[in-house]
Amino acid sequence: MKVLIIGAAGMLGRKLAEKLAQSRQLSGEPITHLTQVDVVEPITPEGSDFPVENQACDFSKMDNAHRLISQKPDVIFHLAAIVSGEAEADFGKGYAINLDGTRHLLDTIAAKDGYCPRFVFASSLAVFGTPFPDTIPDDFHQAPLTSYGTQKAIGELLLSDYSRKGLLDGIALRLPTIVVRPGKPNAAASSFFSSIIREPLNGQEAILPVPENVVHWMASPKAATRYFVHAAEMDTSAFHGSRAFTMPGLAVSVSEQIETLRKIGGQACVDLIKRLPDPMVEKIVLGWPERFDTKRALSVGFQPDTSFEAIVRDYIKSEGISI
Amino acid sequence: MKVLIIGAAGMLGRKLAEKLAQSRQLSGEPITHLTQVDVVEPITPEGSDFPVENQACDFSKMDNAHRLISQKPDVIFHLAAIVSGEAEADFGKGYAINLDGTRHLLDTIAAKDGYCPRFVFASSLAVFGTPFPDTIPDDFHQAPLTSYGTQKAIGELLLSDYSRKGLLDGIALRLPTIVVRPGKPNAAASSFFSSIIREPLNGQEAILPVPENVVHWMASPKAATRYFVHAAEMDTSAFHGSRAFTMPGLAVSVSEQIETLRKIGGQACVDLIKRLPDPMVEKIVLGWPERFDTKRALSVGFQPDTSFEAIVRDYIKSEGISI
Repeated sequence: MKVLIIGAAGMLGRKLAEKLAQSRQLSGEPITHLTQVDVVEPITPEGSDFPVENQACDFSKMDNAHRLISQKPDVIFHLAAIVSGEAEADFGKGYAINLDGTRHLLDTIAAKDGYCPRFVFASSLAVFGTPFPDTIPDDFHQAPLTSYGTQKAIGELLLSDYSRKGLLDGIALRLPTIVVRPGKPNAAASSFFSSIIREPLNGQEAILPVPENVVHWMASPKAATRYFVHAAEMDTSAFHGSRAFTMPGLAVSVSEQIETLRKIGGQACVDLIKRLPDPMVEKIVLGWPERFDTKRALSVGFQPDTSFEAIVRDYIKSEGISI
Repeated sequence: MKVLIIGAAGMLGRKLAEKLAQSRQLSGEPITHLTQVDVVEPITPEGSDFPVENQACDFSKMDNAHRLISQKPDVIFHLAAIVSGEAEADFGKGYAINLDGTRHLLDTIAAKDGYCPRFVFASSLAVFGTPFPDTIPDDFHQAPLTSYGTQKAIGELLLSDYSRKGLLDGIALRLPTIVVRPGKPNAAASSFFSSIIREPLNGQEAILPVPENVVHWMASPKAATRYFVHAAEMDTSAFHGSRAFTMPGLAVSVSEQIETLRKIGGQACVDLIKRLPDPMVEKIVLGWPERFDTKRALSVGFQPDTSFEAIVRDYIKSEGISI
């Protein structure tokens, strides 16, 4: 079982590689080789007993795509993307990497006779745009309001069509916002959903820019990693039509986040959250979906988090935080 | 007002050009020039009082796209496509023309500073795939089951994103099956919906390959032409998100078609319909949507046919048939 992770240096790519290093197998087949690719050189996951090859390269370049696919990996995880803000700021770059790069990969695979790898594609809830119903069903239309969302929606469509034609065996996962993200705050407007838990647990202040009644669709890094592995292992033989699945998550309000923090870390932690309303962030966040009905993904075995409390306790455990 | 029709030799392209020749204007601006393009040389519409330039060329070739767009037409109608059956049989050709060709056009327009033409794109109900609800709403997901439907869905997404970015001003129309198509039966599985009206009215036999309870979403050539003109003229300034509209139609059963034929042409006409069940055609047709709720298109002024009887009477009148 040869595995390729494109976008292996990102948070989810690293978590996924760590999980593979632990499990040493996919679908009961021992992993014999892992290739990790990203624009910066990925890190070999701790404890891997199989050879790991790390490459810093741009997957969207034809030559690189050919080289990566020439190894005929059995499972390909494609997590690399120009993120939303950058794809919006640099129209050409977003299309070049997120659309053309992904299509080159698919076409390179399709061109190889008798080769039909499992291709797991990180899509995004950004394929959806307002107006939203209260709960978004699996058959809600893709009407993105960003170039990033457009590129992901197109990637899903290509993946589904190429899979229908038997050219590859694709699954696209629309992931919830990952909370609690380890590490530092970043420039994403959603960053505070993690910050208001992570920073107080580390004895640091966190900024809350939105009202406490804001609700958001979340999943833990652990659930997201589990989704990727399940997507690599699941039986796709009875699939019909779209290969894109909205991933299960929890619709959590900021106030529920704060109550959970109080329960686990105490009032001292909660006191580290500073309200600093930011109308710009609030406007962005109010344009996001709050809640999904993910029957389709649940029916094919994707296992969500059980509670926000479990998410926070997992975070504390996996990061070795003492409280 | 300079107009470009790509795909001008097809049935709808010809009807559209004839309508422009009659109206001589769009949005109250006199038409000063019409360029017609298709793989075969289009025909100058009768009675046009403006210069008409007819070109046989492949719009999907970069050079041709540049030449066509260099004239900076104010309104572009893009009706050209590799049709469903051919796009399914020739995977590469379908993507080359329907996806890459369309994207070249959009990119060529986008590259021209200060140029933002109205771009009317013929999309298709093939962007949808089973399973369907009884009535398909405007926010039903795009889950095509053909490469053609995939390419049209991608075209819509690109059009919407490019429009959002102000690079062009696009509208995509998902047209119902056109009934009654003038001319001869063709290879399309939907051909019989027109044949069972057209042939008997011409004193000829027609084959009905499906049961009479089959229901299908239809619009007349006249309604389709009206939709294109409305799409060229409508105010798009308040549009948000998707620029793709499912076009209004009539959900007509085969038995209603036959009753209408009886009313207009008499029993002698109906007797010319021969039942010849074709399980293959029936299977294809049963995979098609029957009925749509097109609130969104109706709310922005697209005017549907009033009844199937009116469709047949229009056909008789426009084709000069004596009954």
